[in-house]
Amino acid sequence: MVVTMHKINVELKDNSIIQVKKDSTILEVAQTISAGLAKVAYAGIVDGILVDLRTSLDKDCKLEIVTNKDKEGMLVFRHTATHIMAQAVLRLYPFAQLATGPATENGYFYDIDFGDFKITQDDLVKIESEMHKIIKSDFEISVETVTKAQAKAKLQNIGQTKYKLLLLNDIPDNKSITLFTQGEFVDLCSGPHLSHTGQIKAFKLTQLTGAYFKGNQSQKMLTRIYGVAFEKNSQLQEHLTKLEEAKKRDHIKLGRELGLFTTVDCVGQGLPLFGPKGAKILQTLIRWVEDEETKRDYVLTRTPIIAKNDLYKISGHWDKYRDGMFVIGDNDSNYMAIRPMTCPFQYFIYKSTPHSYRDLPIRYAETSTLMRNEDSGEMHGLIRIRQFTLSDGHIVCTSDQIEEEFKKALDLVNYLLDTLGLRNDITYRFSKHDPANMSKYIDNPSMWGNAENSLKTILDLLKIDYVESIGDAAFYGPKLDIQIKNVYGKEDTIITIQLDFALADRYNMEYTDADGAKKRPVIIHRSSIGCYERTLALLIEKYAGAFPTWLAPIQVVVMSLTDRTALDTDNIVKQLKSKGISAIQDNRSEKIGYKIREAQLQKIPYMLIVGDKEKTENVVAVRDRKNGDLGTMSLYEFENKILVEIENKIL
Amino acid sequence: MVVTMHKINVELKDNSIIQVKKDSTILEVAQTISAGLAKVAYAGIVDGILVDLRTSLDKDCKLEIVTNKDKEGMLVFRHTATHIMAQAVLRLYPFAQLATGPATENGYFYDIDFGDFKITQDDLVKIESEMHKIIKSDFEISVETVTKAQAKAKLQNIGQTKYKLLLLNDIPDNKSITLFTQGEFVDLCSGPHLSHTGQIKAFKLTQLTGAYFKGNQSQKMLTRIYGVAFEKNSQLQEHLTKLEEAKKRDHIKLGRELGLFTTVDCVGQGLPLFGPKGAKILQTLIRWVEDEETKRDYVLTRTPIIAKNDLYKISGHWDKYRDGMFVIGDNDSNYMAIRPMTCPFQYFIYKSTPHSYRDLPIRYAETSTLMRNEDSGEMHGLIRIRQFTLSDGHIVCTSDQIEEEFKKALDLVNYLLDTLGLRNDITYRFSKHDPANMSKYIDNPSMWGNAENSLKTILDLLKIDYVESIGDAAFYGPKLDIQIKNVYGKEDTIITIQLDFALADRYNMEYTDADGAKKRPVIIHRSSIGCYERTLALLIEKYAGAFPTWLAPIQVVVMSLTDRTALDTDNIVKQLKSKGISAIQDNRSEKIGYKIREAQLQKIPYMLIVGDKEKTENVVAVRDRKNGDLGTMSLYEFENKILVEIENKIL
Repeated sequence: MVVTMHKINVELKDNSIIQVKKDSTILEVAQTISAGLAKVAYAGIVDGILVDLRTSLDKDCKLEIVTNKDKEGMLVFRHTATHIMAQAVLRLYPFAQLATGPATENGYFYDIDFGDFKITQDDLVKIESEMHKIIKSDFEISVETVTKAQAKAKLQNIGQTKYKLLLLNDIPDNKSITLFTQGEFVDLCSGPHLSHTGQIKAFKLTQLTGAYFKGNQSQKMLTRIYGVAFEKNSQLQEHLTKLEEAKKRDHIKLGRELGLFTTVDCVGQGLPLFGPKGAKILQTLIRWVEDEETKRDYVLTRTPIIAKNDLYKISGHWDKYRDGMFVIGDNDSNYMAIRPMTCPFQYFIYKSTPHSYRDLPIRYAETSTLMRNEDSGEMHGLIRIRQFTLSDGHIVCTSDQIEEEFKKALDLVNYLLDTLGLRNDITYRFSKHDPANMSKYIDNPSMWGNAENSLKTILDLLKIDYVESIGDAAFYGPKLDIQIKNVYGKEDTIITIQLDFALADRYNMEYTDADGAKKRPVIIHRSSIGCYERTLALLIEKYAGAFPTWLAPIQVVVMSLTDRTALDTDNIVKQLKSKGISAIQDNRSEKIGYKIREAQLQKIPYMLIVGDKEKTENVVAVRDRKNGDLGTMSLYEFENKILVEIENKIL
Repeated sequence: MVVTMHKINVELKDNSIIQVKKDSTILEVAQTISAGLAKVAYAGIVDGILVDLRTSLDKDCKLEIVTNKDKEGMLVFRHTATHIMAQAVLRLYPFAQLATGPATENGYFYDIDFGDFKITQDDLVKIESEMHKIIKSDFEISVETVTKAQAKAKLQNIGQTKYKLLLLNDIPDNKSITLFTQGEFVDLCSGPHLSHTGQIKAFKLTQLTGAYFKGNQSQKMLTRIYGVAFEKNSQLQEHLTKLEEAKKRDHIKLGRELGLFTTVDCVGQGLPLFGPKGAKILQTLIRWVEDEETKRDYVLTRTPIIAKNDLYKISGHWDKYRDGMFVIGDNDSNYMAIRPMTCPFQYFIYKSTPHSYRDLPIRYAETSTLMRNEDSGEMHGLIRIRQFTLSDGHIVCTSDQIEEEFKKALDLVNYLLDTLGLRNDITYRFSKHDPANMSKYIDNPSMWGNAENSLKTILDLLKIDYVESIGDAAFYGPKLDIQIKNVYGKEDTIITIQLDFALADRYNMEYTDADGAKKRPVIIHRSSIGCYERTLALLIEKYAGAFPTWLAPIQVVVMSLTDRTALDTDNIVKQLKSKGISAIQDNRSEKIGYKIREAQLQKIPYMLIVGDKEKTENVVAVRDRKNGDLGTMSLYEFENKILVEIENKIL
């Protein structure tokens, strides 16, 4: 093939190659392909990098045209919506100082310093109205590559100096600096963006929160405005309806309404206080998991939540994870830290006695209190908190036992998820290290090769349908992450099982093999139910607060129909409690309909009603929160019914 | 009565008054009374103050002659033994720098800086031998009152400058300074002492440990030499025999031997790691207590272990207790602290919903992890540690309910202590505030009067036989302390119940009374079983590690008599575990006698032995750790036997 001068070869997504004039923009290439494509094109991916549609191509490359069908396309779309919001804010509040405003998985936000002005929900309506004007103006969005000095001059000129100059300084010298302009609005931004503000068809500002600049608590608290944006109004409406539904299941809202937990300003963010109902559910879950682990030949440990930094130096946490820990003390001779994981503590239990190959595998489990110093912007309800309770554990085994032990650990996880009704909601992620970012990991490429191959072999043997994720490994080894989405669609890891060929060496753990030689064991780090708080959050959202009876903090409310039966409810509650059933009474002088409505709102599985007739006949009238009236039965009959339901953990 | 000039009136212990010459010494007064008394006199108490026998009386006073029969007398006796030890040390190690050397309840110690010299147990023998020489020399012990400048000159002269000069500087200007001399040895000491070194008849140096100067971690770690001293060799021998017996029950020694817990240098002091057996006992205790509390209408909470200092400022902890807390952060805007108690967290649970008088009493309970930054010298095994687990709780009630609720809290304590077999080992202490030291307390005298009167009324109503202790109240209120002695006779508080009329006000807690008025509740702070770790320590010592079956971490060991029955033990263990019985197997190819001896050493309640005969007859041979062979029975029969024992918590 003869290549004409001034033409370049562009390889498209379907591997076909087209020739275009050198320095064509991506939009022009799209037009070459089809006018329809050009219309829906939002950006391009050139040799793997997401770039603006106005980018010109100066050499042979691979090109993917990104449209509204692509995740990346919608990211660009929402990013442009952020700029429109910022432009509207500056029109209404010219004194506002912009910090950063990215698109997110489901929407976008901008962190803004409003100075002394206290912005409220009402102001969001004004900003929305101004955004409509900007969209109607259909400004062209232009991009300009500038020097640092030029960018600085421009930012000073428009008065955006408080945060933007700091962000400008953070840009490495080898990266190009771009300014995006739409109408009177200019922003320091790496883009890409759409071509015109008019392309944003439907949007809404959804939420106001506080967030520290750069997520750093020592920085100023800014106002974060969240929004969503769509191409069609019908999509926005559909999203808002879904959001309304999700909000009803939001564990933070339900947690408060049902009195499960509370937060307190003077205690701090990410530190929930569980009241009697929340604490009862956690107690039920913890005992269940500990007992199930005991059945499966785990042994319990109970180790301190704090240690001298000497301990974390051995593991590498002091080096790799110090910012994530709560540190006590002011110099190396007295530093201590609250533990972010249980690993080294269980290793020292292992090391406290000598071991033979006959002892292995040893499966240590602990209901472990851990703390991680999460950024304030990262925290969310019970899903991401600073203090949490992990069903933690470490299996110390020989390399021959890895596969069997991994399988058993996964069996336990699956059993627990099945019983909780969460099994169908999860997906599997194989999290590997990132060779391009080795400062995050123990630097031993052959160990990583070995560990990741082992894990891959096991996952394939177990026929696990996983996605791979580079860069999500623990610093000491690869892992299988069990992923779940919350009610808003945000994905989090709920449980992990990790292979570790590194730390036994660092902690000098050994066993005596059959031949008398000292050998290093392999360690499987694993959780069975994850963090109890996070799992509870997901259960609240899954069941919209109407927990299966065995998990319900109050299982029965006994109501008197009249004051004449008030004493009877007391006796019935005592009888139920003596069987380990969690029961309360409601013998207030209120109408029975009112009492039932309250119990329904509290999502209590069973209501027992005692009136004169029931008293005479020595029965109780039973209501179920789902099916309503179940008729009358003897208390003994009801006890048996509910105890079977509890014992079998019926969902 | 005509009083002759130069005579004074001395009122004796039996209230009789004798006249003696002005400026008579106490020893002379004793001689006036009887030669026998003078012989056994060790010191005097003049108007309530313990003073040296050589003190002269210059005015009318009350005098008690202290002898070897009195606690104070033996304190003086042991204090002199300390000086003899220090004298011997300086003869052998002239470079040693003395710090402080008091007498204690059972013995005495001296903290000494040996510089680079590493003293060992062997050196104690040398020191003892030198002490015998000093006693044989029967030096007179003389006392001299000096000025600060004179004391300084003397200390410089004898080369004791490193610590003694610091201690000298700490003496307030209004206190007199005394030097005690015996032979070549001089010590800065407030006394009192015996008259001659020869009075110490029998002694022994018992232990070597490390201790920070003034108990302060930022100071140098010194060597602490412990000793005991008696008047007769037979008493010493009796003491040493008792000590040997006590050591066999020492929970630190047994904890290690039975694999209950371990400590690790790089984790830190006062932070025990519980291995599988220790963790299992704690789990059993915690579940039992939580269930018993639930039966008694307590509700659980689960609150964070850390909070911003804002929380502790309200309670007064930040002001009164900061040194006792582990603090994170470096300035007032980011200070957080690990909690030393649960109180304010449970108050915020109370405050999270409005309350009516109908809701009260509310009884909150939590199995609460707490941390207190104890001095390193104070820590001891599991009895005094830095991180501990308190069965904590707060009863919020009206003032009418205090008596009933206090009684119920005490009933629970008594039930638990009875079940553990500790009830007869405890004594009661009524701990009051010290009006002379109000900086330690919330400064509200009428509140204190009110609270202490209330508590006294309740204790008297309940006919509790208590001793009073001034200065042991909590900073917010008086308390009933339940005291217990460890195996060495050292007394500690195991459980407390406290009355608090102060903190509901500070935390603005309220309820709506029947008349619609907002009122302050009263708070009872209480524990039911105390700190689980401390209670475990006392249980280990009480039972010398042979826990009642229901508490034993391993309840049954199933042993094969020959390799032919190795598989049977596996099935039996599975069967026992399915009933919730904690069982292990021992099917090693070892002689049965060896296996039994090992199980006895591990204090496992039951041994089941399976040989060919038992296999054929489908029975097990049962051994009990106390009574030995119990004959054969079916496994079903054994299960029933042990389950009854566990269920009824038989001691």
